[in-house]
Amino acid sequence: MRFSTVSFNNNRLRIIDQRHLPQRLVYRECKDIRDAYYSIKRLAVRGAPLIGVFAAYALYAGVRGLKTKSAAAFISRLSDVASYLKSSRPTAVNLSWAVDRMILVAMRNSEKDVSKIKRLLLDEAIAIHDEDRLMCDSIGANGSRLIRSGDRILTHCNAGALATSGIGTALAIIYKAKRQRKILKVYADETRPLLQGARLTAWELKNSGIDVTLLCDNMAAVLMKQAKIDKVIVGADRIASNGDFANKIGTYALAVLAHAHRIPFYVAAPSSTFDMSLKDGTEIPIENRPPDEVRAFISRSTAPKGIKVFNPAFDVTPGRLVTAIITENGIFCKPYKTSLKRAIRH
Amino acid sequence: MRFSTVSFNNNRLRIIDQRHLPQRLVYRECKDIRDAYYSIKRLAVRGAPLIGVFAAYALYAGVRGLKTKSAAAFISRLSDVASYLKSSRPTAVNLSWAVDRMILVAMRNSEKDVSKIKRLLLDEAIAIHDEDRLMCDSIGANGSRLIRSGDRILTHCNAGALATSGIGTALAIIYKAKRQRKILKVYADETRPLLQGARLTAWELKNSGIDVTLLCDNMAAVLMKQAKIDKVIVGADRIASNGDFANKIGTYALAVLAHAHRIPFYVAAPSSTFDMSLKDGTEIPIENRPPDEVRAFISRSTAPKGIKVFNPAFDVTPGRLVTAIITENGIFCKPYKTSLKRAIRH
Repeated sequence: MRFSTVSFNNNRLRIIDQRHLPQRLVYRECKDIRDAYYSIKRLAVRGAPLIGVFAAYALYAGVRGLKTKSAAAFISRLSDVASYLKSSRPTAVNLSWAVDRMILVAMRNSEKDVSKIKRLLLDEAIAIHDEDRLMCDSIGANGSRLIRSGDRILTHCNAGALATSGIGTALAIIYKAKRQRKILKVYADETRPLLQGARLTAWELKNSGIDVTLLCDNMAAVLMKQAKIDKVIVGADRIASNGDFANKIGTYALAVLAHAHRIPFYVAAPSSTFDMSLKDGTEIPIENRPPDEVRAFISRSTAPKGIKVFNPAFDVTPGRLVTAIITENGIFCKPYKTSLKRAIRH
Repeated sequence: MRFSTVSFNNNRLRIIDQRHLPQRLVYRECKDIRDAYYSIKRLAVRGAPLIGVFAAYALYAGVRGLKTKSAAAFISRLSDVASYLKSSRPTAVNLSWAVDRMILVAMRNSEKDVSKIKRLLLDEAIAIHDEDRLMCDSIGANGSRLIRSGDRILTHCNAGALATSGIGTALAIIYKAKRQRKILKVYADETRPLLQGARLTAWELKNSGIDVTLLCDNMAAVLMKQAKIDKVIVGADRIASNGDFANKIGTYALAVLAHAHRIPFYVAAPSSTFDMSLKDGTEIPIENRPPDEVRAFISRSTAPKGIKVFNPAFDVTPGRLVTAIITENGIFCKPYKTSLKRAIRH
């Protein structure tokens, strides 16, 4: 990729502010923990895996300046900052997963000097970052085995390089398949209300020389009916132990439509997206977003003032509608209740 | 309704330019036949029944100034203007239906003076207009019998007062049910790319004191899954003899989703929408619209420049997914191949 979604060098946490895409590629330094919180909440940084990597760095950056020499006081403050960061978005589990990994490192080393704990936290953040890139490659390699040359693939939202620190999840499969010289055609749902498909997926695929066609979300069913879609591949924000998963609003509709048209429907996500503590998708918290995202189109008003709005950011798709879940540890099929246990190695 | 979508007084053809809604209610005089053509093509006037009424007046207005005294020459010119108007949008059949009615009047009276033929053409346009208002009332009365107090109804695009010269088709049912003191909740799909649901349906329902909630098209499936939708009611642009029908893009997806969730799916349309010459929906011509409707909104870019786009204005829904078709002549159920013959009285 010719861009770097997140980097941490010389104690500077730099991100792409994705709200400016596709018009401009804007890099921005994240100043402090409050800035990090709003960068996630307002979607400057988005995509479940990327949020995890970013939050790990942000947490380290947020506590490295603390003056205390008491490990207990340091860890207490670390936990506060972690809770604050976690509260920025409720649905994706990778945020909690990364932040919890950081806290665990501090707690396991609570007998050490604060300066040493800080160093271990930075190491852990870098490890999370490195693993994320490798995870993307593995998902791409695993998933690309399912792709045939000539496939026409529909995707929703952005589960691409912009959603990770590597080559993506759903789109990693497409990038790998392309490197294997398979000929592909990708259809990208624009993904209302915030148009991640139009702004981000169309942008990164086009820049990578992939044949991509943009459509409005409500048009996908017509392509399916016309037998122009061979596979649907999407990412995930949280996967329950039975295979039910939360992803960008509109994913559930696609899964029902794919099922009705007998089109395979794949989820590509790292094992950090699994939440085995949840029995099923009903337990996944769904974020509701501000009404103006629906009342307006890129801040231009499109609906009567004050009109009531339904605006969940995510929906939950039952595992029964999912053909397979592609992770860095392999491809897993139904029944997910048993197969997903093997998907998590650590 | 506190607005008049189309009027013809003192030889002035006046319309609401619906592209300015919901920000402003702008009335505009249609100057000539070229203006009428672009008013339809660029959606200043839209909605299958309204286009029919408007086209009838526009056709009369376009030929009333002709100086010829030869009925043959007059009718020849009338046919040319009619063909031009018909070419503005291909999918809705009401445009052809209205224009063909006008031509038939001229042809049946070709032995008369040109001035008399002109008078008969105006009478016919007024008749089409009057019938349209009555049709709306009848569809509302027929359809409201299906509505129970407490129903939560999902609609797509705008099949309301703004799509007709009366109280609408799908929304006529809601207006009538409200007058019967039934308590209703309406969910309105925003309807990408041109947002007729957000701009027009939300506006007219809110102005009429109906409880309306706006959502993005890709959110409807979640409401269905949560058992928050009791009925889906949409309009139609053309209905084939087997019940397959064309309507705004996104309708087919809704029909499949409603079927998967066992929710009744109703089509409300005047008999002028039927095209009994078509065996099924595959024969309905589907208009493709300019790519920039999907790449941008009101000239604000939302996707990479030059990105390929899929942008059909309509889709075709199989009759098998339709619970009933509600017309001014009654409610018709499967098998449509036989029942629809009774739907057309003239």
